[in-house]
Amino acid sequence: MTGEVRVIPLRGVPELEEGDDLAAELAVAIAAVGGLERGDVVVVAQKAVSKVEGRVVSLDGVEPTARAVELAGPDGDPRHVQVILDESAEIVRSRPPLVIAETRHGFVCASAGVDASNAKGPRTVVLLPLDPDASARRLRERLLETTGVAPAVVVSDSFGRAWRQGTTDVALGVAGIAPVTDMRGELDAAGRELHSTRIAVADEIAGAAELVMGKARGIPAAIVRGVDVEPGEGGAAELVMPRDRDLFR
Amino acid sequence: MTGEVRVIPLRGVPELEEGDDLAAELAVAIAAVGGLERGDVVVVAQKAVSKVEGRVVSLDGVEPTARAVELAGPDGDPRHVQVILDESAEIVRSRPPLVIAETRHGFVCASAGVDASNAKGPRTVVLLPLDPDASARRLRERLLETTGVAPAVVVSDSFGRAWRQGTTDVALGVAGIAPVTDMRGELDAAGRELHSTRIAVADEIAGAAELVMGKARGIPAAIVRGVDVEPGEGGAAELVMPRDRDLFR
Repeated sequence: MTGEVRVIPLRGVPELEEGDDLAAELAVAIAAVGGLERGDVVVVAQKAVSKVEGRVVSLDGVEPTARAVELAGPDGDPRHVQVILDESAEIVRSRPPLVIAETRHGFVCASAGVDASNAKGPRTVVLLPLDPDASARRLRERLLETTGVAPAVVVSDSFGRAWRQGTTDVALGVAGIAPVTDMRGELDAAGRELHSTRIAVADEIAGAAELVMGKARGIPAAIVRGVDVEPGEGGAAELVMPRDRDLFR
Repeated sequence: MTGEVRVIPLRGVPELEEGDDLAAELAVAIAAVGGLERGDVVVVAQKAVSKVEGRVVSLDGVEPTARAVELAGPDGDPRHVQVILDESAEIVRSRPPLVIAETRHGFVCASAGVDASNAKGPRTVVLLPLDPDASARRLRERLLETTGVAPAVVVSDSFGRAWRQGTTDVALGVAGIAPVTDMRGELDAAGRELHSTRIAVADEIAGAAELVMGKARGIPAAIVRGVDVEPGEGGAAELVMPRDRDLFR
């Protein structure tokens, strides 16, 4: 129906290994749901991207520094914390064994996005992609090659939030759409400029996709169809609040 | 298709006034899209709820305190800031004329949710509902009466986030679903406990709804259909991080 948004899970993607052709795997799942349409956004879980890009580390052989031991506390694994430190530009908050860090990309999140679940074995962890925007662009290009349609692509991850419980999925990498829609200058019904003039639509798209994806369900991607998106060449860097304007750093 | 989520805008809801029967107006729009189904979540913009509940204030006659004048700075309206102060339990950050406050409900947001756009005239502002969970419960009951189906209800608003640009819609009031799904104890493919064990699904549902709603488009509500929700009797209070566990207060 006109104006509806559909969130379509992409099923049947096998367990992924370094070097796998993620776009080709997604293309099979996309074909199974009837193919892509113009304006589609393909949302892909960061972990799937990281695995094929080899962003997986074994904790064996990681030498924890004194800082890592301190931040791990009595309940944490200092080797895991060391990997978090290696992936962090800055520690924002800590309460052992919890570390909230700013990543190299400028994202602020628990464990700098380093994740022990869904990795290959009990001693491996999965890191964030080095450049999630580049990952999104590459996927967009490869999906054009494999399906004939260039969707927008969002690489997503589950982030906690200040002041609120639970996580929501947000965009780490974006290709093909403007991640923040700028409604400045638009008027409401009373003729006044809108209050929420900048909507992080890429984050809302990521959150919508999570409703059909599921780490326990093995669905690493989804199509979000029907969003009135603004095409764009920007990236998720536009979603990061610059330090000098961030009241919470 | 099995497993898909649909986000269906509810159109044609007229401009709302205090005392209007919001559920009855929504029921007309719901009928126009074929009615409700079991498991549906109806997301309603907080402003629509606030208007029918009379949570609208005229700035005429508001006497700003010295604090309001100081927080307004050279660019703000001290009367508007005074209303923000009146709606706040605490000021969390300020950079005149911007005020980020904790509301009486425990939400942390810009202007304590007090909004000058979409109000009735240039000198009126719209406040948050006094008890958005109660508003959601009442809407759920009235929708059952008017449509024969009791949907879950989420009362939503656009909130900014620490460290990220732009707003996303989140849940202020919830009825009929557990706002945070608890996946603790669930295992991933490798048999390890999941990393993101608590997903703020009510916030993701609110964000998904915003993709079809639009303050400039006059669509104050949407149905989110097909989410594998957990029924629940909790409320949005479960989404608020308690002070003593909040690393960012």
